[in-house]
Amino acid sequence: MATAEGNKLWGGRFVGNTDPVMEKFNASIAYDQRMWDADIKGSKAYVKALQKAGLVTQSEMEQIVTGLDKVFDEWSKGEFKIKPGDEDIHTANERRLKEFIGDPAGKLHTGRSRNDQVATDMRLWLRDAVTTLKELALQLISTMVERAAAEIEILCPGYTHMQRAQPIRWSHWILSYATALSRDVERLEDIKKRVNVLPLGSGAIAGNPFNIDRELLRQELKFDSISINSMDATGQRDFVAEFLFWGSMCLTHLSKMAEDLILYSTKEFSFITLTDAYSTGSSLMPQKKNADSLELIRSKAGRVFGRCAGFLMTLKGLPSSYNKDLQEDKEAMFDTYDTVQAVLQVATGVISTLKVNQPVMEGALSPDMLATDLAYHLVRKGMPFREAHGCAGKAVYIAESKNIHLSQLTVEDLQTVSPLFDKDVSWDYTKSVEQYSAPGGTARSSVTAQIEHFRTWLQAQKQKP
Amino acid sequence: MATAEGNKLWGGRFVGNTDPVMEKFNASIAYDQRMWDADIKGSKAYVKALQKAGLVTQSEMEQIVTGLDKVFDEWSKGEFKIKPGDEDIHTANERRLKEFIGDPAGKLHTGRSRNDQVATDMRLWLRDAVTTLKELALQLISTMVERAAAEIEILCPGYTHMQRAQPIRWSHWILSYATALSRDVERLEDIKKRVNVLPLGSGAIAGNPFNIDRELLRQELKFDSISINSMDATGQRDFVAEFLFWGSMCLTHLSKMAEDLILYSTKEFSFITLTDAYSTGSSLMPQKKNADSLELIRSKAGRVFGRCAGFLMTLKGLPSSYNKDLQEDKEAMFDTYDTVQAVLQVATGVISTLKVNQPVMEGALSPDMLATDLAYHLVRKGMPFREAHGCAGKAVYIAESKNIHLSQLTVEDLQTVSPLFDKDVSWDYTKSVEQYSAPGGTARSSVTAQIEHFRTWLQAQKQKP
Amino acid sequence: MATAEGNKLWGGRFVGNTDPVMEKFNASIAYDQRMWDADIKGSKAYVKALQKAGLVTQSEMEQIVTGLDKVFDEWSKGEFKIKPGDEDIHTANERRLKEFIGDPAGKLHTGRSRNDQVATDMRLWLRDAVTTLKELALQLISTMVERAAAEIEILCPGYTHMQRAQPIRWSHWILSYATALSRDVERLEDIKKRVNVLPLGSGAIAGNPFNIDRELLRQELKFDSISINSMDATGQRDFVAEFLFWGSMCLTHLSKMAEDLILYSTKEFSFITLTDAYSTGSSLMPQKKNADSLELIRSKAGRVFGRCAGFLMTLKGLPSSYNKDLQEDKEAMFDTYDTVQAVLQVATGVISTLKVNQPVMEGALSPDMLATDLAYHLVRKGMPFREAHGCAGKAVYIAESKNIHLSQLTVEDLQTVSPLFDKDVSWDYTKSVEQYSAPGGTARSSVTAQIEHFRTWLQAQKQKP
Amino acid sequence: MATAEGNKLWGGRFVGNTDPVMEKFNASIAYDQRMWDADIKGSKAYVKALQKAGLVTQSEMEQIVTGLDKVFDEWSKGEFKIKPGDEDIHTANERRLKEFIGDPAGKLHTGRSRNDQVATDMRLWLRDAVTTLKELALQLISTMVERAAAEIEILCPGYTHMQRAQPIRWSHWILSYATALSRDVERLEDIKKRVNVLPLGSGAIAGNPFNIDRELLRQELKFDSISINSMDATGQRDFVAEFLFWGSMCLTHLSKMAEDLILYSTKEFSFITLTDAYSTGSSLMPQKKNADSLELIRSKAGRVFGRCAGFLMTLKGLPSSYNKDLQEDKEAMFDTYDTVQAVLQVATGVISTLKVNQPVMEGALSPDMLATDLAYHLVRKGMPFREAHGCAGKAVYIAESKNIHLSQLTVEDLQTVSPLFDKDVSWDYTKSVEQYSAPGGTARSSVTAQIEHFRTWLQAQKQKP
Repeated sequence: MATAEGNKLWGGRFVGNTDPVMEKFNASIAYDQRMWDADIKGSKAYVKALQKAGLVTQSEMEQIVTGLDKVFDEWSKGEFKIKPGDEDIHTANERRLKEFIGDPAGKLHTGRSRNDQVATDMRLWLRDAVTTLKELALQLISTMVERAAAEIEILCPGYTHMQRAQPIRWSHWILSYATALSRDVERLEDIKKRVNVLPLGSGAIAGNPFNIDRELLRQELKFDSISINSMDATGQRDFVAEFLFWGSMCLTHLSKMAEDLILYSTKEFSFITLTDAYSTGSSLMPQKKNADSLELIRSKAGRVFGRCAGFLMTLKGLPSSYNKDLQEDKEAMFDTYDTVQAVLQVATGVISTLKVNQPVMEGALSPDMLATDLAYHLVRKGMPFREAHGCAGKAVYIAESKNIHLSQLTVEDLQTVSPLFDKDVSWDYTKSVEQYSAPGGTARSSVTAQIEHFRTWLQAQKQKP
Repeated sequence: MATAEGNKLWGGRFVGNTDPVMEKFNASIAYDQRMWDADIKGSKAYVKALQKAGLVTQSEMEQIVTGLDKVFDEWSKGEFKIKPGDEDIHTANERRLKEFIGDPAGKLHTGRSRNDQVATDMRLWLRDAVTTLKELALQLISTMVERAAAEIEILCPGYTHMQRAQPIRWSHWILSYATALSRDVERLEDIKKRVNVLPLGSGAIAGNPFNIDRELLRQELKFDSISINSMDATGQRDFVAEFLFWGSMCLTHLSKMAEDLILYSTKEFSFITLTDAYSTGSSLMPQKKNADSLELIRSKAGRVFGRCAGFLMTLKGLPSSYNKDLQEDKEAMFDTYDTVQAVLQVATGVISTLKVNQPVMEGALSPDMLATDLAYHLVRKGMPFREAHGCAGKAVYIAESKNIHLSQLTVEDLQTVSPLFDKDVSWDYTKSVEQYSAPGGTARSSVTAQIEHFRTWLQAQKQKP
Repeated sequence: MATAEGNKLWGGRFVGNTDPVMEKFNASIAYDQRMWDADIKGSKAYVKALQKAGLVTQSEMEQIVTGLDKVFDEWSKGEFKIKPGDEDIHTANERRLKEFIGDPAGKLHTGRSRNDQVATDMRLWLRDAVTTLKELALQLISTMVERAAAEIEILCPGYTHMQRAQPIRWSHWILSYATALSRDVERLEDIKKRVNVLPLGSGAIAGNPFNIDRELLRQELKFDSISINSMDATGQRDFVAEFLFWGSMCLTHLSKMAEDLILYSTKEFSFITLTDAYSTGSSLMPQKKNADSLELIRSKAGRVFGRCAGFLMTLKGLPSSYNKDLQEDKEAMFDTYDTVQAVLQVATGVISTLKVNQPVMEGALSPDMLATDLAYHLVRKGMPFREAHGCAGKAVYIAESKNIHLSQLTVEDLQTVSPLFDKDVSWDYTKSVEQYSAPGGTARSSVTAQIEHFRTWLQAQKQKP
Repeated sequence: MATAEGNKLWGGRFVGNTDPVMEKFNASIAYDQRMWDADIKGSKAYVKALQKAGLVTQSEMEQIVTGLDKVFDEWSKGEFKIKPGDEDIHTANERRLKEFIGDPAGKLHTGRSRNDQVATDMRLWLRDAVTTLKELALQLISTMVERAAAEIEILCPGYTHMQRAQPIRWSHWILSYATALSRDVERLEDIKKRVNVLPLGSGAIAGNPFNIDRELLRQELKFDSISINSMDATGQRDFVAEFLFWGSMCLTHLSKMAEDLILYSTKEFSFITLTDAYSTGSSLMPQKKNADSLELIRSKAGRVFGRCAGFLMTLKGLPSSYNKDLQEDKEAMFDTYDTVQAVLQVATGVISTLKVNQPVMEGALSPDMLATDLAYHLVRKGMPFREAHGCAGKAVYIAESKNIHLSQLTVEDLQTVSPLFDKDVSWDYTKSVEQYSAPGGTARSSVTAQIEHFRTWLQAQKQKP
């Protein structure tokens, strides 16, 4: 009987065998082994609490800790062998511990359930993952900010609706993404608060019956706080779901950036050139140089959001406390982390190495992009903006009808539209840009202020715990 | 020409007419009129900044403010008439203002774009919505906490995998949802920080060219801070997306609660009875009393998440700055708000009025739910938990084979499994529950501590600005 | 009692009142009134079956049919008044019928449940909607095909990875979307098969107890077949879900087309110009002409997919048969229909009116787009393609190093790469295009064959029932 | 140079190196190797077409075919070694072919692109996958139908809104899922039509320039038809997206079935018992027997729909033809297949082995479930249904007030509600069930007809190609 069931944790009861498809379907070891480190950490803390509660002796505790260190060593050397029956990382680690130290291993799970154990492992793992992602995001923002600082003189067309709108500084474009990403960093910190909560000591559902010292566990495992309610602690996974959404949001921002850059790297725009390191060629067309790195970045927002959508659908309508459905949490979490960390690094590489074709960018500025300025010319002479907008529109129409540039209209032409037009009408792009000196604008002073803001912010972020 | 186009804002230029299907497709007035109040507020602040910048005179400012107040009055009395050509709320309000005060109305839009205007309106609207949702969520949590306090003596089965697991206090179940919802409230506050940022003064893309005083605008409109970059301020909608996800997460929590309660209100469980106010009957079957309120709650997680999924998909891969695609933001935001506010109220009604059938709940406790305690009995005698778990499993098996309750096994029966069993074996449910006195557990003291925690927390929440 | 409850269908039993928020939350009349026509049709058929089964007399049947015709008239004249208590269209119609004809109205619901009634109404409604959508899709395809036929001579760059790849016919691009849409039409027909199934006669769950003649109902209502199992017929909504997915897929196709056209209408590409009817201007920038129509088309894929995602999440894990959660089906269905029908019409308008800037398109063809042809030159001389690809790549590299066009390399230059190059190397774009004469290619003959294929297919489609 | 780049297909051009993170991000070999078989099949067909077109000699063709057979052998024996530089399965197979046969290998890719190659591989792979899934679905349906036939005598409560509604046959419940799944099978066939289309011969975008015989390719690879347009053939992935949706729909059906069965296997319902093979125990609670198999089934609808959502989001707004974003197609496709095939098998195992607790099921039938019959009693005496429904409701109310079963009301009690009640009132559950003899109902004859329908249908399905 015991043989048929291997070393499954509930070995004492079942009398049948399981279907091999079901076995495989049920097992999570293929992916949850990734938390081997967190699982061992959690167990080491737990055995200390058991000792304090008098459930294991000092000597048993030491045996268990030493044994767990050996298990740790095997994993870190890549020597741990998963055996049939190791359905998850918790079972695998305890099985190996028992092989090392024998019977005392059987005391480790006292008052603990896989329900609080797995929640603890995931939170430990995700806490580290979040820290790494924050560092990578800061690195990307920092790259953006320094590039923006270095290239502050470069002007380019600003687009709305993908149509040329107004001249802006190229740095202003870069910083718009630094701004969005800085919110993503702030969101990550908000999430970390909710991840960094200790569930261990919640048992399967009702709590821990041996009055284990949860404050000791918290300190050992460096959690910020202790979970409030054992059913919630073992049965809810919003900390995972919000991480998945975080990844989706962050990658949606980067999908937009990628879209812009793909556009700017088309032959037609030719604003930027990617280095070969971030391009690939074609198996058929020898002249092709494709922005694969950016296309991959663009695509990953979908992938990660799929994980978020899938997991939320899995959670919907589940009854409270642990249900096996929750097993979907881990692959979603791992895949999201893997994807986002790769995207952040590739994006950093792209941003730090792309070549800006300044003459092309500036050559793309065209007089019609100053039509708003033409209206402002009239506004400054006292005309209400709505009327001025209409006049500027007529000027555009006249220039189009004559098939000339807006800037080629004579003052006389302009005066047929409004007598308020005079020689002060300016067609200087830099002058136009410099108007936008209100905070957040594209004037030099304003962009410099943004750069300073981010430098200070980055400094502060790096000094946080 | 101008006639054909009505009073569209770009009236000066176009020469063709639009397709009626396209007109309707393009217009947002049908739903964005909901922001009439925010739109007027924003304009009133903006005209003050224009006056300070010398772009309108004191007298023009007063005319505009008075005119806007008249528009406000019409809306608040339900007398505002939308006309053909009012494609959005901004156009409608300005058109009406012009009817009231004539030419000076044309100065209001100076240096402003619908791009920063709509972002401002949405943030003002959502800030209020978030405040209302927080209040409703606190009301629900408060109801839960007080019910939990009142019914702390009631025991019921705790389920994992929808199978009876261990006895718990009914209050412990209630508080598990209060705990989850308290995180939702915290998330809402995190979101509010990012919503409550002033975009006005960002123009269409490049910023504001009249050096408008954005700090003045911030104070007038009571925003916490000023947006950093004008392209980001007008082109990003993560503040909407994270609100949509927030709604999805909160309703996913409530979908779980609803599922539990629907289950508990089946004939088979019969743990609770809904009042008629939250039930409906059948058009065919006279005996039916259906928990429609709870089924609706359960269903809405899908609805709201659909909005989140749809909007994120719309955002994916959009180029930066404003694109018309962003028009999808408003209906998603409104529908999410409407749905969540209704769900929170209905959930509060259900929780405050449902009847608990205490004898049935307690009658559902069965001796096999104390099998873990049987193992703990052995653990307390010094047996390693794994072995004890196996012994308890064997006892369960023997009882099943004999077709008797676990509690009906004699000490002699138990001793065939392990000689460590003795007369101290307890089958008392209250005693079992009281073991779980570690923080977060289901013992009286522990549940009381949870209640105290939430009372303090609610107090603190209500005192926040 | 009865008063408090109004004319709710289960009026006989409840003793409490409902919460007004709950009332509103529960009611569906605000949107399901859209099925008034289908609801009346279904009832007229049902009363005939009741009469055949002997449950109403000939005279009662006539009274009911006449009464229903009056209700129909009111709706079609826009004179139907919804009253408090009319929580759904079924209740409203029956209430009105009763007002017209009195007691016999109470016989109409015999053996019927709202569960089979609403499923019938939805299928009748959706059947018509699907027919309309098919017509609109065929109109769009037809517009594409005729435009492709008319402009077959125009060449343009074909892009992969948004990089110029190979010269193609502009018609080839158009027909690629006709091809995708033709699959969407085929999918719609597949769906129609599954929509056009009669559920009436399934009751609430167990079936119809009066041995109603379901074949008669099928004929009256022109369904293709009769539902197989009453629980499935009343409890499953896959016919709705697959329609929602259909909309998502179709609009995803059109989002791609829109993206291409938005790109082509940028200043930088300038391949096409939208008519004013499908463009809009800017409230700030007088020169702007934005492709709003295309941006709206692009955005709607997200909207509709959100409906699909939301509804599937609602369905997930629901127990079998009717649950109130299913009420989410209708708004999703209506919104999807409304959105897709508008998009198809606007897309047809855009495609039929956009102006192609042929000289710009053809001017964008560049010699490097013939690099593959350079490789093929060598292949035709016997060199393995892999080697030839490498040689062409080297030629591209040499031209780039010399900063000249690929076509400006002399035969001598080319021969430094491979002695197989000779004077036959061609830089003629039309000749290049004409190579692709295999079926599906961009050669004239091949594009003509595609056009012929679609003309025949359209003919066949229009002749289908 | 060539060394730095390894054997990448575009080896002739690039001069830089790639970032290792980018390399890994870019490579698909880790998962697309799964299509090794399809890739080789496609190449074998293609070389035949090349030979027919005169691009390779008979002898070269034979060398290539023999070489490909060797590559095939290595894969099928698990001996194929992936090398650095093998970024995808196409590159890997061609690299290995070259190692086997040298230069002629370089001719294989003539006129082919990875764009048409990968589309061909995916369609070949998916065609087989679809066939397997259909077989597994038929097996599950067949199991259901035979179980329904065997247990036709068993009655149980039918639930709507999770409340006891009317008595039904247990077989009727089973067959409701067979019905839903039979539509999934039909959908799978619809999809297969659109999958089974040959894209090979479409090149990168423009088509095939060597006038390759695509009809020959079609026959060799047993496709039903040839793709119509080369841009569509290489750039669209709706055949994948609709498969992902198919999986989502099918698993949503099974999530409902799982939910029912989880409910039925609770202690409170106790209608069914799963065999140990499909249950698991608890690491903490010795008495637990959890329906893990069903919980996993329920959860997977989310997982698969996440794939669908993610991929559609990736597709949204992509420009036409091949973009690297499409690389997301394969993992989504594989994971969906793997998940659905496992779920179908586990579901078959569960359905074929679960034990029905007939006495408990039938014991759960209660007199109030016959309240509709009470109304029908009056209908049969001539009372309009609405009035009868009200009377039956009053009878229910009286019984509840007296705290007795509905069936315990005396005829006198009933007559206080309506004088039409008489001694014929029946409380027999079988008699009640037998009323529902209209097609699709739960009467014996009607259930038997359903069984016969499915037996015939299954027979027909199995005989299809």
